[in-house]
Amino acid sequence: MCELLGMSANVPTDICFSFSGLMQRGGATGPHKDGWGIVFYEQGGTREFRDHRPSVDSEIAQLVSQYPIKSETVISHIRQANVGDVNLVNTHPFCREMWGQYWTFAHNGQLKDYQPEPVFYQPVGTTDSEAAFCHLMDEMRQKCCAKQVCAPFNGDSTDHAKIWQLIADFGRQRMTQGVFNMLLSQGEFLICFCGTNLHWLTRRAPFGVAELSDAEMRVNFKKETTPRDIVTVVATQPLTQNEQWQKMNPGEIIVFAKGEPIWQQAA
Amino acid sequence: MCELLGMSANVPTDICFSFSGLMQRGGATGPHKDGWGIVFYEQGGTREFRDHRPSVDSEIAQLVSQYPIKSETVISHIRQANVGDVNLVNTHPFCREMWGQYWTFAHNGQLKDYQPEPVFYQPVGTTDSEAAFCHLMDEMRQKCCAKQVCAPFNGDSTDHAKIWQLIADFGRQRMTQGVFNMLLSQGEFLICFCGTNLHWLTRRAPFGVAELSDAEMRVNFKKETTPRDIVTVVATQPLTQNEQWQKMNPGEIIVFAKGEPIWQQAA
Repeated sequence: MCELLGMSANVPTDICFSFSGLMQRGGATGPHKDGWGIVFYEQGGTREFRDHRPSVDSEIAQLVSQYPIKSETVISHIRQANVGDVNLVNTHPFCREMWGQYWTFAHNGQLKDYQPEPVFYQPVGTTDSEAAFCHLMDEMRQKCCAKQVCAPFNGDSTDHAKIWQLIADFGRQRMTQGVFNMLLSQGEFLICFCGTNLHWLTRRAPFGVAELSDAEMRVNFKKETTPRDIVTVVATQPLTQNEQWQKMNPGEIIVFAKGEPIWQQAA
Repeated sequence: MCELLGMSANVPTDICFSFSGLMQRGGATGPHKDGWGIVFYEQGGTREFRDHRPSVDSEIAQLVSQYPIKSETVISHIRQANVGDVNLVNTHPFCREMWGQYWTFAHNGQLKDYQPEPVFYQPVGTTDSEAAFCHLMDEMRQKCCAKQVCAPFNGDSTDHAKIWQLIADFGRQRMTQGVFNMLLSQGEFLICFCGTNLHWLTRRAPFGVAELSDAEMRVNFKKETTPRDIVTVVATQPLTQNEQWQKMNPGEIIVFAKGEPIWQQAA
């Protein structure tokens, strides 16, 4: 299995604190030593970092945990391989361009007897996760494309709801084939589908002190933020021990934008 | 204008030395201060680093120049903006997946009155460079796709030659609209098209000492290599002052694989 980490914020925010906790699970406090990756969105552009070595030993992960890259949306993943070799090509998150935007995907779980036929998007590596991503992108492109409607994804919210529904249905279909927890984004929206395990937490004023569960590290967000900041963090398991995380239910989907839930649906 | 750097090698090789020279041109010895990016291929997977700040001041560029990432193929770019704002989304190299491979593109030059209509691949940013990349990918996909032939790009060399020819013709068409120097790769091949300026150099045994033109730095490749290593470096302008670089001619294309030219064509 693997662990997921996502962030959605209303102002460019760094994720050093949460990432510091996550990377400990990549070989120290957790067994997810088969690589890690992170994608930061900045005004539609992306910065990617990835390594097929354990995050706890990775010099690049060290840089990412210390260098405050400010971003509106983040997706990160640490891997414990089950399907697909341990190499760079199988390291999440995966990215593809659709409708003039970069889409990023990370998956926790595994799928059985699942070999979708590529239409437009083709996997480069050999994971079931990337196959599912390409399959989902193909479905979205085939069923929602109508370029004038959703490209560049500036339609009204009715069009968006159609896409969220398609993603929710896709996730529930995958749940019949195994475990499917997923984070997906095109920079503006952080789309979270829970098959088994996904937790989230919104930090807003009044900010307090948070303590990591996986490392001796605490941060006083009051010193790091302004009163208007709203930041949601999503993770497979809670990353802090003194805050109230919300557990998502199997089959549930939540779409976050600017740190707030904007669309959700129970199973 | 911008500067390009590419590498093709028969064994995984680091590019720290050449990149150290190039990054000096991003704000110190050269005016290319509007961002930089680099893509490393490792067994079909990629590592990307990019920043819209000057390379000479970038902590991430510092890491890349010091951390020996071993790779078979590299494409890098430092930018002096002419078309498109200075931001992450306009920072080269650009990447797209085609035929189950990640394709990477960097461009030096500018194009006038050029607004191709997107078919499959759509620009995310606003540069003429990314528009040209998407246009080229669309042409390749439409004219060479025939999945059974070129995906996963394992056809015989006749099929490859058809693709190289298409790219050469595309480059020559772009030359009628402005300046078009280009590096393109899917990990195995480094495809270099010269519109005005592109130089290359192959290092092989017996290896010697190389001295950077842009920084006080020299390296004795004899100590860093084995006698069987073959490494080709391609750059807009020569990066070292004591080696014999070959200048490409306008309209010329050279395709390198494992450090050696495997296909070329004069204008």
